Formats: sequence, C-alpha cells, structure tokens
Amino acid sequence: MSKTNIHRVTVHWGDCDPAGIVFFPNFNKWMDQSSLAFFAACGLPPWRELERTRGIVGTPLLEIHTRFMRPATYGETIEVHTTVEEWSNKTFRHRHVVKRGDTVLCEGTEVRAFCMRDPADPERIKAIPVPEDIKALCS
Amino acid sequence: MSKTNIHRVTVHWGDCDPAGIVFFPNFNKWMDQSSLAFFAACGLPPWRELERTRGIVGTPLLEIHTRFMRPATYGETIEVHTTVEEWSNKTFRHRHVVKRGDTVLCEGTEVRAFCMRDPADPERIKAIPVPEDIKALCS
Amino acid sequence: MSKTNIHRVTVHWGDCDPAGIVFFPNFNKWMDQSSLAFFAACGLPPWRELERTRGIVGTPLLEIHTRFMRPATYGETIEVHTTVEEWSNKTFRHRHVVKRGDTVLCEGTEVRAFCMRDPADPERIKAIPVPEDIKALCS
Amino acid sequence: MSKTNIHRVTVHWGDCDPAGIVFFPNFNKWMDQSSLAFFAACGLPPWRELERTRGIVGTPLLEIHTRFMRPATYGETIEVHTTVEEWSNKTFRHRHVVKRGDTVLCEGTEVRAFCMRDPADPERIKAIPVPEDIKALCS
Repeated sequence: MSKTNIHRVTVHWGDCDPAGIVFFPNFNKWMDQSSLAFFAACGLPPWRELERTRGIVGTPLLEIHTRFMRPATYGETIEVHTTVEEWSNKTFRHRHVVKRGDTVLCEGTEVRAFCMRDPADPERIKAIPVPEDIKALCS
Repeated sequence: MSKTNIHRVTVHWGDCDPAGIVFFPNFNKWMDQSSLAFFAACGLPPWRELERTRGIVGTPLLEIHTRFMRPATYGETIEVHTTVEEWSNKTFRHRHVVKRGDTVLCEGTEVRAFCMRDPADPERIKAIPVPEDIKALCS
Repeated sequence: MSKTNIHRVTVHWGDCDPAGIVFFPNFNKWMDQSSLAFFAACGLPPWRELERTRGIVGTPLLEIHTRFMRPATYGETIEVHTTVEEWSNKTFRHRHVVKRGDTVLCEGTEVRAFCMRDPADPERIKAIPVPEDIKALCS
Repeated sequence: MSKTNIHRVTVHWGDCDPAGIVFFPNFNKWMDQSSLAFFAACGLPPWRELERTRGIVGTPLLEIHTRFMRPATYGETIEVHTTVEEWSNKTFRHRHVVKRGDTVLCEGTEVRAFCMRDPADPERIKAIPVPEDIKALCS
C-alpha cells in the first residue's frame, strides 16, 4: 500500500480574496507544501542538503491538474492528503486531496521530476531518472 | 475570430524560490490576473461594481490544467496570452499561453463559471448561466 | 498581566527567495495571521461575523515597524508571540516577537484600528473607537 | 540630487483581502520590487550575476517602518517612488512613497545591507561595507 502524508493547513485572512474565499493559487501552494512534507515524512533530507550531497535541487512541476469543488474561508482548518500514485522512469505522479472534515474541497494531480543543475549551464535545470533509493524510501 | 488579451508581467525576486526560478503557483496567479484583464479589456466593469449592479461576484475556477515547459527567473518580462476557447451554458474555458519572447514557458486551461451569492445563504456562492450580454461583449 | 498568543508557523520552500531565506514580507504576513489568532484566542468571532452583527470589517494596519535580526529557512518551525502592548482611544499597539527556539528572528510593532465601512461611501472604511467590550475581552 | 526610480504596479484581485483592499504585506512586496528596480535602473546587474562575480547575494532588510494612510483596491494603478535617503558605512536607507495619482497611500523606510555568504558557513549570510563603486553608481 502506498504511503499517505496529511498536511494540515489553517486558512488565514490574507489567503482569501474579495469574495471572502481562498484565492485559488493558494491551494496549489499548499499542495506544493504537502509534496515536500511527504518526502520529509519518508525520510528525505531538505533540498539544500540534497543539492550539496547529490546535486538534486528539488522536484519541479511538469504538469498539474486541479479540480475545485467547494470554497474554503479563513478560520477553517483543512487537510491535504498526499500520495505518489505512480512512479515512472523520469517522473512521478502525486495525488493531493484537500478536505475540510469529510468534505472534499479540491483535488490535484501533479507530474514532477527530480532535477539537477545542468553541468553545462548552471542557470538551467534538467530532469534526472527518479533515484532508486528515493523511490524505495517513499513507496 | 476570438479576442486575445496580452498581460505583461515582470518577474521579481520574491516570485522565485530557492532554486532561483519562479515558484509555480505564481504562474497561476498571473493567469488569474490575465483572466480579469481579459474581461476588463472587453469592457466589463470591476467585480465590485458587477456585484452591486447584478450580484455577480466573479468567475471562480472550477478546474485548471497547467503544463510547465521552461522556468523563468527574476528580471525577465513575460506575457500571458489569454483567450476564451469555448463558451458553454454554465461555464467557459480560458486558454493562457505564457511566453518569454517566442519561447512558450507554460500553458494553462481553465474552466470557470460566473457566480453569485446564494440568496438562501450569503456565505455560499453558486454558478449562474453565462450572461448573454457578457458573452457577446467578450466574443 | 497582558495576554500572549503563540502562533506556530512552519516555513515552506515557497516562502523562501533565491537566497534560500524567508522572503521578508512573509514575516509580516505571519504577524498578521498572529494578530487575528490573538483575537480568536480571546474569544472574538471571525470578521465576517462581526461585519454582519456590528459592521466591523477588521483591524487594518496604520503603521508597522519591523526589525530583522536573523534569517529563517524552509523546514524550520517558528513562533510568533503576540500581545497588545497598549490600548489607545482609537488604536491599539501589537507587539510580535518571532522566535526559532530561544533565538529571536525578528520583532514587529503594529498600530491598528478597528474599522467599519463608511456609511456615506461603502467603498471606504474608517476607524472607530476601540469597542470597550472587545478591549475587556482581550486585556 | 539623489536618483528616484518609479515602479508602476497594477493592483490585482488576488492582492486584495476579504475587506476588498490590498492585503498590506503586498505593499512591502512592491517596495522590495522597487528596491531592486532602483538598482537595476542605476546599472547594477541581477543578484545572481553579482553572486557569481562578487559574492553579493542581495540586500536583505534589517529594518522597515511603514505607515499606511489610504487603502487601494484591484483595478487601480499605483506607483512606488524609491530613493536612497542615506548611505552609511555598512547600511543604506531607502525611502518608498506609494502613490495613486497625487494621493499618497503609504510610505516606507527601509534599512538594508549588502550581504555575502559567510565563507565559514555558506548557510549563513553576513553584511559587508557598502561597495564604493555601487554607491557611486546609485548616488
């Protein structure tokens, strides 16, 4: 069975827009937080350490698909339930389900890749095959 | 032919993450800005005026799909090219192409709906059919 | 003795800038969260309820002074310790001390006022005297 | 006479809070943007280039004092007028005046320092004396 990490978020006043509901890119920000929290919970060190030891700068997004079912507002506590649905050779797929209690607020599917700086041009980053040890740690 | 609005954005230091590239939810924020700029360019008044005159609080997102091809960094100027690809009865579909010069950085497809406050519960909002006059103005 | 509320914050990747440290306006965002958390902990209802029942839309900032002593980075947990240092007739002064363990990272002093919408122009907001019952609840 | 840079900002929907006005940390974000724009306008290269060539990672804030006079809302265009008020040995003081037309919305005073990574511990950054050539370029 795959691992699930639950990332708890309190919605704040400044996260909401003039309609009084969460400004949607914040949901994607919380999914991103939950992705990193997932890897930390699996035992991975912070990216800054992985960059020093193995050149890995993080897991930039290649693709994200989010469906919004219900709004949330400030003062509420929500949870992002995060798993890895699929490991491919060079990418993996996250699934994030955002809930308030039993109510699903939104769902996101992300495709990400582990990346390093391009040795030929340190300003650029490039995807690498998913490291086997990391995959083993997180499955 | 459908209308296209171009929303110009300068990428700033604080928009970038420790990898030195744009933190991705900012791309979605800029698409959201470009959506509103699209409607303003078509002649729609601000939401706060539409809320007063017609009860419309905005066009919340139902769904968004974004593909990221290349990163951007601070100091760069990028453009979000926004159109309405399709008008349905209760929803419409935006297409946003984000470019730096001729290079496509990312592409987003959004499904949105015009919404009002629910008369039965002003804390809730609900989708209404796309107003014909707004559709005519923006097509 | 005055009440103190402690607001716990986990620093995330997207809160940090290309130097790898917290982008400073986020500290002010966390102080703002802590201000609201202070009032909630004292028993005040959310602003949206206070707006309905008493016309109070919140406590906009009039002035803020922040000193930054040490940076923070992602993966760290920090605390914002918030008090009301002084209640004046129309304003009050918050003190926020942001700590990582025993280390003070930054300190902020905010002057805020309780505000209502201007009856003559609902687009404008104006300060009101600090409500006595709220002051009593929070002192 | 000292140089002034004007940084133009359009206020967007997502910059505003449930009271319909700019969430205040955004003003500080725009002042930060304007600080960097000031240095760019004076002829300084981006920080990532200065880090490579001279080890300078940026000009982190030591202190900021902001006074808010009037709110702003989405759809408005505002300007941040930025100068260096004073150059000290290890720090300098920015003054930012944020205007909408002739109306001053808020004013900020920032103390900043040019910083490098600490050679003894690259995770830490430390202030350096203001480089004379940079000061000459920007005065």
